[in-house]
Amino acid sequence: MATLAAELKMNSQWRLRARPHGRPKESDFEWTEEGTKELADGQILVRTVYLSLDPTNRIWMEPADSYLPMLPLGAVMRGVTIGVVEASRHRGYAAGDLVQGLGGWQLYYAGDAAGWSKLPRIPGVPISAFFGAMGHIGFSAYFGLMDIGQPKAGETLVVSAAGGAVGSLAGQMGKIAGCRVVGIAGADEKCEWIVRDLGFDAAINYKKENVAEALGHACPKGVDIDFENVGGAVMDGVFRHLNLGSRVVLCGLISQYNAAAGATPGPANFGQILIKRARVQGFIVTDFASRFGEATAQIVKWLQLGQLKYRIDQVEGLRQAPAALNRLFDGANVGKLVVKVSEEPAR
Amino acid sequence: MATLAAELKMNSQWRLRARPHGRPKESDFEWTEEGTKELADGQILVRTVYLSLDPTNRIWMEPADSYLPMLPLGAVMRGVTIGVVEASRHRGYAAGDLVQGLGGWQLYYAGDAAGWSKLPRIPGVPISAFFGAMGHIGFSAYFGLMDIGQPKAGETLVVSAAGGAVGSLAGQMGKIAGCRVVGIAGADEKCEWIVRDLGFDAAINYKKENVAEALGHACPKGVDIDFENVGGAVMDGVFRHLNLGSRVVLCGLISQYNAAAGATPGPANFGQILIKRARVQGFIVTDFASRFGEATAQIVKWLQLGQLKYRIDQVEGLRQAPAALNRLFDGANVGKLVVKVSEEPAR
Repeated sequence: MATLAAELKMNSQWRLRARPHGRPKESDFEWTEEGTKELADGQILVRTVYLSLDPTNRIWMEPADSYLPMLPLGAVMRGVTIGVVEASRHRGYAAGDLVQGLGGWQLYYAGDAAGWSKLPRIPGVPISAFFGAMGHIGFSAYFGLMDIGQPKAGETLVVSAAGGAVGSLAGQMGKIAGCRVVGIAGADEKCEWIVRDLGFDAAINYKKENVAEALGHACPKGVDIDFENVGGAVMDGVFRHLNLGSRVVLCGLISQYNAAAGATPGPANFGQILIKRARVQGFIVTDFASRFGEATAQIVKWLQLGQLKYRIDQVEGLRQAPAALNRLFDGANVGKLVVKVSEEPAR
Repeated sequence: MATLAAELKMNSQWRLRARPHGRPKESDFEWTEEGTKELADGQILVRTVYLSLDPTNRIWMEPADSYLPMLPLGAVMRGVTIGVVEASRHRGYAAGDLVQGLGGWQLYYAGDAAGWSKLPRIPGVPISAFFGAMGHIGFSAYFGLMDIGQPKAGETLVVSAAGGAVGSLAGQMGKIAGCRVVGIAGADEKCEWIVRDLGFDAAINYKKENVAEALGHACPKGVDIDFENVGGAVMDGVFRHLNLGSRVVLCGLISQYNAAAGATPGPANFGQILIKRARVQGFIVTDFASRFGEATAQIVKWLQLGQLKYRIDQVEGLRQAPAALNRLFDGANVGKLVVKVSEEPAR
């Protein structure tokens, strides 16, 4: 019984208190303190080290099922976390294991091990890389671009939200595949970063330039692949330049997430999909779960060769999560936004 | 020289006089009479028997390149025709051959043989079937449904413009593939025809019913394939019911063709494509040209077995073409709209 007692932890959580209208406010969340319960068979206790903040978190707050079931009011806010197993009643996990899963916005996760995966320790690859270039972020870029986008050398790839976590990786993978790569972002700092540090061929600041016009200059041969993270007016501009047989990788629509249901106009140039015989495909990274091993191997190789770079935008302390979430929607963050919840384990 | 003289025919044409605003008017066309010229090497003279009228004809009248180059003002209106070769200076064609090509809105085509194809004479299959169930119509239904839609037995297929030429075939092919098939059309007569004669499981008259609501009843398991011919509000209704992993076969957007450029709102529920990880793919039948033989063999088999039915909506005389074209846009026609320009050859 001594070991069971050790599992009981004082825990803190952010719970979903209200469905936001527009941007999430701190008052849409409620900070609670509630100890963990004893583990049942098949369960694990995980101390959260990093919490990932992603645009899709906003979708999870809506009063509707999405690709995941609707999150009930009062529940711990859903979130992808990396943590350390502190106690285990599942034979696949042991104390000290580094794991990733839907741990939620809380200091400790105590529950079923199903859905969690163990993370390897890779020489030269810090733990934060699992949110920066691997895990759901890197895999979204990898499968979205490679499988859905099917890039060929010499083609032109446009990436929106190119200064974001997924976009910045997708663009670099496009360069590796031999494409001309043009990024669209909302700040000069991001535009400079993706061109100077990440090797994009050109960048467009959509807050300063007319996207459709600027793309006309930046993409003299038109657009073969649109890696779409934004939607709305930015996507409308890209659609005007789609080539015959082009592919639209629908990874996200961040411009739409804070809008009321039904209030967002559809793409103005939707007819281009027909005329240009284009393919638009939505996806979620878990569709490719059976191939995560392949993606990990490839991404680790690129990281070790220095062909893939990422930037972590780190916020300190779980308390900051609600305020930090909005950095995704106001264009303030560059790279991958994470909350550091507790200390990394010694290696 | 006697044979050459025999090629010279008094010809009549409908030429494109003005770019229509909204629906095409007869005054957008000009009736001219101009004899054919002597054939050069590699050319053929074809007497038009049937002229196909299709929604896409409206796209060809726009002042812009589409999947085909822009048609200049003053040119003979573009159209798919079936005709009989009356003279040939191309060794692949002989007088009496039945052929199909872009003959245009005229009594005679005299020009290059490139782009024309010879039609076989098939026992039990009338010439008009090449517009009714084969040719660009049947092939659009076949490749759109089978290749892009990828139907599986037990899935639900929704077809818009289901009383039209392509839609009525796509729905029947969906039944052959084992799907539940629901058609959307704009007249009770069409709804009755597709359910009673063609075997659709249900039909929705979009002029009388709320499409989204009616689909909720007609598709209790949601929609796996949308064979989309219409766009606009009808498509918005279908998108609300898309299942995970669904496919939208973008064959046409007839609701948009008469609208001013940029005036048509995009799909209101575009975000569903992301959330439901759906695939939207535009196509044009010529993308599949290398496989027309396969489609012909399959469709002939279905016709001979009585598994595939079609209806020809025949208008008499080339003079009627401009007025007849509008029957496509006001929902007046059922089945395949053709103009009979001259008599069928004896078999």
